[in-house]
Amino acid sequence: MLPGIPFSIYYNDDDIMTLLLSGLGISFVGFLLWFFTRSKEFTEIKKRDGYLIVALGWIIMSLFGSIPFILHGSIPNFIDAFFETASGFTTTGASILTNIEALPHGLLFWRSMTHWIGGMGIIVLSLAILPLLGIGGMQLYVAEVPGHTKDKIHPRVRETAKRLWGIYVLLTGVQTFLLLLGGMNLFDAICHSFGTIATGGFSTKNASLGYYQSAYIDYVVLIFMFLSGVNFTLHYFALHGKIKSYWSDEEFKFYLTLISAVAISIAAYLFLSNLYSLEESFRHSLFTVISLVTSTGFVTENYEIWGPFFSTLVFILLLTGACAGSTGGGVKMIRHYLLLKNGIYELKRLIHPNAIIPVRYNKKAVLPEIISKVSAFALFYLLIIAVGSLFLSFTGMDFTSAVGSVAACVGNVGPGLAETGPVMNYSNVSSMGKVLLSFIMVLGRLELFTILIIFSPSFWKK
Amino acid sequence: MLPGIPFSIYYNDDDIMTLLLSGLGISFVGFLLWFFTRSKEFTEIKKRDGYLIVALGWIIMSLFGSIPFILHGSIPNFIDAFFETASGFTTTGASILTNIEALPHGLLFWRSMTHWIGGMGIIVLSLAILPLLGIGGMQLYVAEVPGHTKDKIHPRVRETAKRLWGIYVLLTGVQTFLLLLGGMNLFDAICHSFGTIATGGFSTKNASLGYYQSAYIDYVVLIFMFLSGVNFTLHYFALHGKIKSYWSDEEFKFYLTLISAVAISIAAYLFLSNLYSLEESFRHSLFTVISLVTSTGFVTENYEIWGPFFSTLVFILLLTGACAGSTGGGVKMIRHYLLLKNGIYELKRLIHPNAIIPVRYNKKAVLPEIISKVSAFALFYLLIIAVGSLFLSFTGMDFTSAVGSVAACVGNVGPGLAETGPVMNYSNVSSMGKVLLSFIMVLGRLELFTILIIFSPSFWKK
Repeated sequence: MLPGIPFSIYYNDDDIMTLLLSGLGISFVGFLLWFFTRSKEFTEIKKRDGYLIVALGWIIMSLFGSIPFILHGSIPNFIDAFFETASGFTTTGASILTNIEALPHGLLFWRSMTHWIGGMGIIVLSLAILPLLGIGGMQLYVAEVPGHTKDKIHPRVRETAKRLWGIYVLLTGVQTFLLLLGGMNLFDAICHSFGTIATGGFSTKNASLGYYQSAYIDYVVLIFMFLSGVNFTLHYFALHGKIKSYWSDEEFKFYLTLISAVAISIAAYLFLSNLYSLEESFRHSLFTVISLVTSTGFVTENYEIWGPFFSTLVFILLLTGACAGSTGGGVKMIRHYLLLKNGIYELKRLIHPNAIIPVRYNKKAVLPEIISKVSAFALFYLLIIAVGSLFLSFTGMDFTSAVGSVAACVGNVGPGLAETGPVMNYSNVSSMGKVLLSFIMVLGRLELFTILIIFSPSFWKK
Repeated sequence: MLPGIPFSIYYNDDDIMTLLLSGLGISFVGFLLWFFTRSKEFTEIKKRDGYLIVALGWIIMSLFGSIPFILHGSIPNFIDAFFETASGFTTTGASILTNIEALPHGLLFWRSMTHWIGGMGIIVLSLAILPLLGIGGMQLYVAEVPGHTKDKIHPRVRETAKRLWGIYVLLTGVQTFLLLLGGMNLFDAICHSFGTIATGGFSTKNASLGYYQSAYIDYVVLIFMFLSGVNFTLHYFALHGKIKSYWSDEEFKFYLTLISAVAISIAAYLFLSNLYSLEESFRHSLFTVISLVTSTGFVTENYEIWGPFFSTLVFILLLTGACAGSTGGGVKMIRHYLLLKNGIYELKRLIHPNAIIPVRYNKKAVLPEIISKVSAFALFYLLIIAVGSLFLSFTGMDFTSAVGSVAACVGNVGPGLAETGPVMNYSNVSSMGKVLLSFIMVLGRLELFTILIIFSPSFWKK
């Protein structure tokens, strides 16, 4: 919470004491926790501890992270503050703030920083911890990580984390620099870079990136959203000279193809409908598609007025998710790719019932158990959307808004449809709805199983 | 088409010649087809022929079945007539007629009969043919049917068909008799029984069953809808003294539990909202839930005015489907049950990664390959809803109506949401939309794979 203070001093804001008190207070609590759990019995982490640490980590971070908003009074309601902070740490970017620009700079910096911290956590979680736990086929895309038979968290996690964070910091730095070149001030440049690299979507402006009306800024942001939606191990390989890694990765090719195909179709539609110039059609289409697919949620234009077609399309894009091992949320490209491939192969298997036709990914046969895990993930994902929407509509929300909100939250995108659409926000959602959506954001961010497993009775058996 | 003629004579209608000409004309075409394909090379049916016969069967039946509607002029437009007939044969019950009661009795009888013929086809297809083809885990629920390794359609299909049709005819007869007792005339009683036992949903009245305002008729219809949603082999066993078969079948228990739980919750809600008396709340709730779950689509009350909650709930119920081996459409209870069970077991498998934890169904372990087939089915199903909705909303339909229509058509339910909701119909859907929805009805009715496989290149390879 402290890094925002210089900005508050510079802009002469009233949140300096709030941030100082919250920051030091929480550090003290953290120190106490560390001090009393230093001994060996606490620091040897087993698999089951791993699940609890991850799940509770995100919830406790969101609880403590909301303190400055409440203390300062800019978000006086606890549920609202928790929703906003959970939305930050889960890199969702769904907001209950109706006037973002009224907040002091230090708090806004903290708000954007929750994204950045959340994104850092996710990179390590998805590339170093979840594969070890064997969640939802996650072991597939990290070739170097050994099998999930070991009961202890691998010591190499620390090494992997360092490398990936290096890339993460590098991307943030380069984007900040490019945004500064585009005329953004340092504060906004850093905050928007935090929101981009973490695929979060919190802006410091009420109109999101639409505020700047700058083609240059739009392009910078869309390129970095795209990069943040790529598996970070591919960036790591590329930085070490193996630039071809991108082209030999099937998930990356699928991601690139899908975005290009959808964006070009929409651009053609927008241009032919005389809504924008050719360049604007291309830019707004590409920006919107990348923003939704990567689960960032930045907005340049209100896509809901483009036509009824776009509500359906946006809903589908809310369900895609970027590449696994990126900061993006959602179902993820690899899962869609494997399930689609398996579905097509299922037809082949019907024609040749005695042939064994395994799904191949990056030239290796994928075990049926992995396909089963991936299917279970996708179906749980949809079940959560169904149950969540049912609950939300019970609180009085209409069908479109309800399914849109749940899909946008479980996929960590942010803006949904209709009442919670691109030019609206979550301020009018009922308190019960906000609590539910906060939980759903954490559920989606932690790949469902990390949370669901805790509710399984066998988890608690000795 | 001929059985409707006596009613037209009795009611002095103008469609007698139409039905006579269509009936005899199509019989002549049928005779020619039979005459030139009598030889052995045509009558020995292999597996691949099976797929084509089933798929083309439904489409050709719908094409020929629409002739009397066009010829008589009551549905002058070809696309409309095809939609209505496909909706009949697929037991969907989605209608483009704005004034059903204006049609002559002979044509209305034919319209309801398309349901009945379609339902007969489905019983045999799902219990005798699809298990042999190995589609979507269908081999699971017919214990007596041998494996799917043989390349020829089993000769026992004929024997199975006869037994199941006996039950089908019996149920139709008993319901007709009970409806007559309730004061319905013979014509309406037969037509509504056709619509019920086939889980179709075509009514002879504009207000569907709401026309009668009779609690007795509502209860008769809801009981027979429920029975038609049960696996017909269970009825067969029950009629042969093994009444306990119902209780030893996990799918039946799941079906009964789901309907009871949802119906009781809704009844309580309706009663507490002071919308109806206690009996009415119970009846309308139970009727609506059974009608949607069994994919019948009869309507007694406009459930959309009960609140926004009901749009979401109805959408979810549109996706359920009744038991496999019934006349009901949709995903089917067994698939939901297996996938839910597998999802929960997936959590157990994460906790005990070295244990082999198979899903059990009716006390037998289900092979992972079957789970994979079932998952592929469910995901194709959702993909079809996504792509279909995208297409429909591109023609200008709003999000809720688009997803509602596609879900209602692929699940063979009939009424969807909003523009195609319970008190609306499909008359305002664009021509392209009607063609798409007709195709989607057939796709859903034939368990997806039977149609999809024909589009697979390996199907056409020697």
